[in-house]
Amino acid sequence: MTPARRLAAEALGTALLVTTVVGSGIMATRLTTDTAMALMGNALPTGAMLFVLISILGPISGAHFNPAVTAIFALRRDIAWPMAAGYILAQLTGGIVGSIIAHLMFELPALQLASEPRSGTAQWFSEAVATFGLVAVILGGLRTSRAAVPALVGLYITAAYWFTASTSFANPAVTIARALTDTFSGIRPLDAPGFILAQLAGALLALGLAGWLFRPAEAAP
Amino acid sequence: MTPARRLAAEALGTALLVTTVVGSGIMATRLTTDTAMALMGNALPTGAMLFVLISILGPISGAHFNPAVTAIFALRRDIAWPMAAGYILAQLTGGIVGSIIAHLMFELPALQLASEPRSGTAQWFSEAVATFGLVAVILGGLRTSRAAVPALVGLYITAAYWFTASTSFANPAVTIARALTDTFSGIRPLDAPGFILAQLAGALLALGLAGWLFRPAEAAP
Amino acid sequence: MTPARRLAAEALGTALLVTTVVGSGIMATRLTTDTAMALMGNALPTGAMLFVLISILGPISGAHFNPAVTAIFALRRDIAWPMAAGYILAQLTGGIVGSIIAHLMFELPALQLASEPRSGTAQWFSEAVATFGLVAVILGGLRTSRAAVPALVGLYITAAYWFTASTSFANPAVTIARALTDTFSGIRPLDAPGFILAQLAGALLALGLAGWLFRPAEAAP
Amino acid sequence: MTPARRLAAEALGTALLVTTVVGSGIMATRLTTDTAMALMGNALPTGAMLFVLISILGPISGAHFNPAVTAIFALRRDIAWPMAAGYILAQLTGGIVGSIIAHLMFELPALQLASEPRSGTAQWFSEAVATFGLVAVILGGLRTSRAAVPALVGLYITAAYWFTASTSFANPAVTIARALTDTFSGIRPLDAPGFILAQLAGALLALGLAGWLFRPAEAAP
Repeated sequence: MTPARRLAAEALGTALLVTTVVGSGIMATRLTTDTAMALMGNALPTGAMLFVLISILGPISGAHFNPAVTAIFALRRDIAWPMAAGYILAQLTGGIVGSIIAHLMFELPALQLASEPRSGTAQWFSEAVATFGLVAVILGGLRTSRAAVPALVGLYITAAYWFTASTSFANPAVTIARALTDTFSGIRPLDAPGFILAQLAGALLALGLAGWLFRPAEAAP
Repeated sequence: MTPARRLAAEALGTALLVTTVVGSGIMATRLTTDTAMALMGNALPTGAMLFVLISILGPISGAHFNPAVTAIFALRRDIAWPMAAGYILAQLTGGIVGSIIAHLMFELPALQLASEPRSGTAQWFSEAVATFGLVAVILGGLRTSRAAVPALVGLYITAAYWFTASTSFANPAVTIARALTDTFSGIRPLDAPGFILAQLAGALLALGLAGWLFRPAEAAP
Repeated sequence: MTPARRLAAEALGTALLVTTVVGSGIMATRLTTDTAMALMGNALPTGAMLFVLISILGPISGAHFNPAVTAIFALRRDIAWPMAAGYILAQLTGGIVGSIIAHLMFELPALQLASEPRSGTAQWFSEAVATFGLVAVILGGLRTSRAAVPALVGLYITAAYWFTASTSFANPAVTIARALTDTFSGIRPLDAPGFILAQLAGALLALGLAGWLFRPAEAAP
Repeated sequence: MTPARRLAAEALGTALLVTTVVGSGIMATRLTTDTAMALMGNALPTGAMLFVLISILGPISGAHFNPAVTAIFALRRDIAWPMAAGYILAQLTGGIVGSIIAHLMFELPALQLASEPRSGTAQWFSEAVATFGLVAVILGGLRTSRAAVPALVGLYITAAYWFTASTSFANPAVTIARALTDTFSGIRPLDAPGFILAQLAGALLALGLAGWLFRPAEAAP
């Protein structure tokens, strides 16, 4: 696979992921006053789209769509650091474009800054738990079968929307893109760094655990 | 497979798809005043039914059920143009019959004209994005495995109901059939051409992108 | 497989299916006044349970759980008529037991007669469409792969709850069992025969169509 | 697989399962006053997470996460009793930790005692039915294919939330962990023993039935 196609797959996938998160959040809050119904209208489409995007773009780029995941694969030496830097740049760019696409579909200003505060130790602990789970699911899934990963990630994120207090961003590129929307899924730009640090901490913890829990069976001496 | 069976599969599949879209929209709006709940009662059945119909009719006709998809396959020379014309006629006929079946089940006039306005650049942009995504998902899915396509299309459309402002028609035959129902899922006949043009634009864009992004690995020289 | 185990599988499967339909209907109407939410709380569990029951009992008995389906397989000579009669008796018995189990779990009288009227040509047409679709899905699915049938039937019924005006009973044994519950999913005993006749008509139509549409490719002469 | 890794997988899996059950219950009740919507926001994440956890941890420990299931496997001699005791201890510990994690994410006191009464013969009968079904699904699923179990268990529990009057705890370790949360999913500690006895009775009944219904075909003499 050429580098250009790999980077395009990361940018396209992250863009469509963010379009789904932001767009379904806008749609849901326009249609109901019940916030749980709105969260369902946000969570199910996101999980479904993750399954779809990882399925079709996984064979091109690995379908990370997430700087925390790319960093973990770089630490595992599954991807070289220069290419990892390219991936992360593509994810950040794609995420911002995805937010703009959602706004244009719903006749909102293309560029916005979020005003929704999301901060405090409980929120950060939620993001660490969410990203720990995500990375553990990916590394545990890959151990068994690459083909299982799209369903595992899609269903994990659908669940994590509900069981974490932060609705599980679990992704630095998505966090930055969501800082650029003043709608249901937004996060105040000031609060993004705390989320991202918590995500990286959770990802590293999962990498350490997985290195022990999911290591392949040893060959007999 | 004989041409008669292929055309029957396209007509039957499009009819049952439209019966699902229109019928579940009627059911949902009769049972709730919460529009997000109604959209969920419309989106989940449509996605489930797409999975079912593509699974059982795919081996007969390829399960396009969509003139935009048939046109893309004709441009790729996967289907001859005369057969493609037959497919599109079968889809249009099936779609209209599907709308009538839904009305008869719910004791409504068989033939109706929709009054719901759906127009403007944001709606057209939504339809272009929705159909771009649909065609990209189909072509990306086929690259990996034909067996993956029913789940990919079903889940993509379930998500796209929520993340596009138009609820993702993404299908000219379904658009025309929905112009013939004055219920939840209707579209004013006057507004159908704008939707269809936007859908074809999105489909062509996806064809161009997929030709590059999803092309098979080249043999070594 | 011994006949006793086959009959036990049909009785157990139909019992648990009816327990799910009746029980989830009671639970849902106790928890909400929004009828669409209640139908979702009825439809998703039913579809999920059909997937589960067909998966685990299919290898024992074929997992019909439905006299209309058993009759179709008898007409196709996939099952002998005496065994088919045993299947139907097991399904009827299991269905009634399933209704009683649901009532006991929810502290309701074990034996009840439904008072909910469900009649008229639109309802009967709905049941014919629902059962036509169900049998077409089963025969179309079997043509491709027996392993695909649990997901196809589960998702088809989830969708048919919403797109038919009758919420898709599509099963004479379930219809009789639902005549014995005066709760959300009930049907007045007087109205059961009309539903059952419509179901059989839809099933026969699907058998005729499938004999042509899904017949195996002919060998070259 | 080393014993330490097996026990860690049981503790981690039960912890994340309980975090999902308790956390999604808190989230759902904070966002809606419609109890059916809250139950949907509790049931779908639990089912999704069971699929994920059994998929990734099944290859390590078998993914019981449930003392009733471990006891059944010990009675079948699929696991030695000393290791089974270790599994149950790991599950109990993990479950309690899972409840604490959920509380910390939602800024609630880490240690709580539930006040929600759940008692009486109808509730106990519900738990017996729920656990009978769960063990039958596991043993029936294993007979066909180990790979089918994650989806079977996830979808079964999603359905059983709705069709049993108790919302289907079906797990002694989860029951004890839920006695330690005074939120949507709690159970008064006084009522936990009744639930656990009913669960064990249902599990034993399923073991007996499965020994007959799902026994492998006998070799010809």
